[in-house]
Parts: sequence; C-alpha cells; structure tokens
Amino acid sequence: MSCHLTFSSFGLLGFGAFGRLIAAHLAPHLPCLIHDPALPDGTALPPGATATSLAEAAGCDLVILAMPVAEMAAACRAVTPHLRPGAVVADVGSVKLAPAAIMQAHLPSHVALVGTHPLFGPQSAKGGIGGRKIAVCPIRGKAHLPIAAFLRARLGLRVILTTPEAHDREAATVQGLTHLIAQALTRMGPLPSRMTTASFDLLMQAAEMVRQDPPGVLAAIESANPFAAPVRTEFLTLVAELDHGFSGPD
Amino acid sequence: MSCHLTFSSFGLLGFGAFGRLIAAHLAPHLPCLIHDPALPDGTALPPGATATSLAEAAGCDLVILAMPVAEMAAACRAVTPHLRPGAVVADVGSVKLAPAAIMQAHLPSHVALVGTHPLFGPQSAKGGIGGRKIAVCPIRGKAHLPIAAFLRARLGLRVILTTPEAHDREAATVQGLTHLIAQALTRMGPLPSRMTTASFDLLMQAAEMVRQDPPGVLAAIESANPFAAPVRTEFLTLVAELDHGFSGPD
Repeated sequence: MSCHLTFSSFGLLGFGAFGRLIAAHLAPHLPCLIHDPALPDGTALPPGATATSLAEAAGCDLVILAMPVAEMAAACRAVTPHLRPGAVVADVGSVKLAPAAIMQAHLPSHVALVGTHPLFGPQSAKGGIGGRKIAVCPIRGKAHLPIAAFLRARLGLRVILTTPEAHDREAATVQGLTHLIAQALTRMGPLPSRMTTASFDLLMQAAEMVRQDPPGVLAAIESANPFAAPVRTEFLTLVAELDHGFSGPD
Repeated sequence: MSCHLTFSSFGLLGFGAFGRLIAAHLAPHLPCLIHDPALPDGTALPPGATATSLAEAAGCDLVILAMPVAEMAAACRAVTPHLRPGAVVADVGSVKLAPAAIMQAHLPSHVALVGTHPLFGPQSAKGGIGGRKIAVCPIRGKAHLPIAAFLRARLGLRVILTTPEAHDREAATVQGLTHLIAQALTRMGPLPSRMTTASFDLLMQAAEMVRQDPPGVLAAIESANPFAAPVRTEFLTLVAELDHGFSGPD
C-alpha cells in the first residue's frame, strides 16, 4: 500500500474553522482548491491553496466536504454535476452515520465515499497534529486504505478504522459529555481561578478547548448523533441522584 | 518574619490518606508524633515519625487535626485536656467554616487556631507538592503568619490567605463541581478510551484524580460546605436546559 496519495489535487468545500485547519495541514502535501460561497475576497489562504469556483473544486479527484451536517445534503446536490468518475468524496463531520447516509443518498455511484472525523480541532491542534487521532470509516469503495496510510505516514495521525455506528456510539460519550459539561460551565459565568485544585484546572482546560467550537459543531455532536441524548439523560440522572444524596438529611 | 517553624515537634491526629501525605512532607522538617486509634500495629511510618498516645501527640506545640469533619468535634473534646497553653491547633479539612466553628466552640482559649486546606491530595501530589496551592485561614491568634512563611519557604507551596467563608464559596465551585462530575462519570461505568479527544482525555484525568478520595472528603466537599448545594443546583439546571435544547425540535 502506498503512503503517497495518488491524487493530483483536492477540492475543499467549506472554509470555516475546520476547513482552515484542513487546508493548513494538507496544502503542503497536495494542491488545494477551495470553494466557499461565504469566503470574503482577499481572505488569506495558506501556501498551496487557491480560492476557486464550485465546478473546479468539485472536479478534483479528492473532494472534502467541510460544512455543517445540516448543509451537507444541499452541498452533495451542488457538487454532483461536477464530480469526476472515480473521484473520492470525504466528509470531516463530528458524527458519521448522518453524513454517510446523506452522501450515499445524494452522491452518484461513480464516486467512492469515505467518512472521516479528525478527533481534534483548532484549539487542541494548536501544538501540532502529530499523534492526534482521526476516525476513518469506509463507506463506498476502498479509498479509505490509501487515505489512512497517508494520514499515518505523512501527517503522523493515529488512524482509528471504524464504522459510522461504532463511531457515533463512542462519540456520544466522548464529545457529547465533554461539550455538554463545557457549555454548562461556560454558562455559570466567571469561575474561580485563584483557589483552584489540579483537577479543577484540568476540567477548565477541557472546557476551554471546546467551548468556542461553532454552533454547527455543537449541533452535530449533541443533536445529529442519535446516541447522544441517552448519554445526556444518563449523566443528568446520575448528577440529580448524587445531588439528592449530598443534600439529604444523612 | 522567620521562615523556620519555632515548634519543636508536631502532633498528627489521624493517619488516613491525608494524614499520611502530611507526615511524609512535614516529618523531614519537624519530628512528627502520630496518634490514630485505627492505626494497625506495625504500620510503616516515614522517617522522623513515631506512633504515640493521644496525650503525647496532643501535647505538642503544633497539633494537626486530620480526621473527617464529622469526627472533629469529638476529636477536639478528646485533645483538650492535653493541649499546652500557647500551642497551635490547625485542621486540614476540605471546608473551612465548619471546622473553624467546631474548633472555636470546643478548644480552650489558651490555644491559637489556624484553618488550612491543602488544595491537593494523594493523587495530584504524586509528582511532588512544590508549586501546589494551600489555603490558610487565621481563626484565633497570629500563628498563621509563621505557618504561611514555612509553607512557602520550606515546602514551596503557594499560600492563599483567606477567610473560612471566602474559602467555602470558592471551594463550592472548584471542588463541589469537580467531585460531582467525577462521581457521575465514575458511575457511568467503563468509558471510551480509544476514540478520545484531547478535551475528553483532560476530563478523564480530572475525574481520575479525585474519584478515589475517601467518602469523608466527598461528604465534606458536597454536604458540609453550605455553598455547594446551590452550585450543584445551578449546574444541574443548566445541564437540563442544554439537554432540552439539544433534544428539541430546533
């Protein structure tokens, strides 16, 4: 298996916080054609990246969908006329069942499909992405194999090959709980910073890392993941039981 | 102000997890006389520490109370007949209002009183205590001054001088929330360890650091702190509101 991508360029649909992270890390390896209708003229792009039309970005042999899950069906319909036979389309969403279903339903059978979820973001990747994890789900065809090899060998990522369902079950706890707790802590207003313990400092670091994620990411993690609501309910029930016990007459 | 304690030895009443930590770090500086009725014969003690009678431990010029808050009133009554005039009695509990009230009510006026709360424990002090924080509250007399100087200069601690009420208000959030979340996560059973994010890893580290604290510590933090219940209620309400929003029809 080659660890070099056989692609000649990649199209990046969407240039939000996560699109920027992808462009910064992939453009040094592969020419990057970016299309985002919301991209202001004169936006600074990393070396190797160019802003272009939808047709040109979607005509690359690797097309990465980097928009909120709620916009993915429309994006699939928009790119379809421009997709080359044999091209690979990959998404980078925080859930994997919904994007896999959307891509399978809306994208033509002559393209291969791969679901990916980089388990890091702009905050947690500040110190570099080497050693960080990425989930990769085969959806249609075998393009996940060279992609996984490239992610390992060239970006130094730890690749977790999994299925969309297994991914979403784990992410419901991993991301669902972390973001829920971070959002609640953020809403509590200024929290103590002086008289803190090591464990509270870690809790605050965890919250700080995710609390500025855009609303689309939070919606994907909490609302588009079918396993997230039961995890939240379990956590809420346990917290209520503990609170009741601590406040009890004893 | 001297940074040397003028005490000739210290009595340590209670040799639980926290008593052990105190003995390990103080015995190199000051002979340590330990009394704990639950101490099994042949328990290994750090160099400089000796197991002894209640009378002898309570007869030192510095006496440290290291038992659960619920046992502190009985301990105060037990040590009283043996306390020397001019001695200093300090507690190390996770709350400060209740121990301050108990010590003021039960200990004779001829001893000085200091409340302390080392903001670390056996888990978070594994890498050493240098740079860790300790809250110090003057309660009766001025013994907090040489004690704070010693803690800074000889143990390398960051001393936060505060009042029992200000301490308990901050600790209600810092420790109350951390322990509540840690207990809830622990009750959720085996959590994912493979497909994790950096923020979830931090959350798990925070929980791991406190979830094995003895029940007496948890009771002090959640039940003996008068400001903890409102903080828990606020967190619970916010989590429920967020859950409702995420599960709603948008």
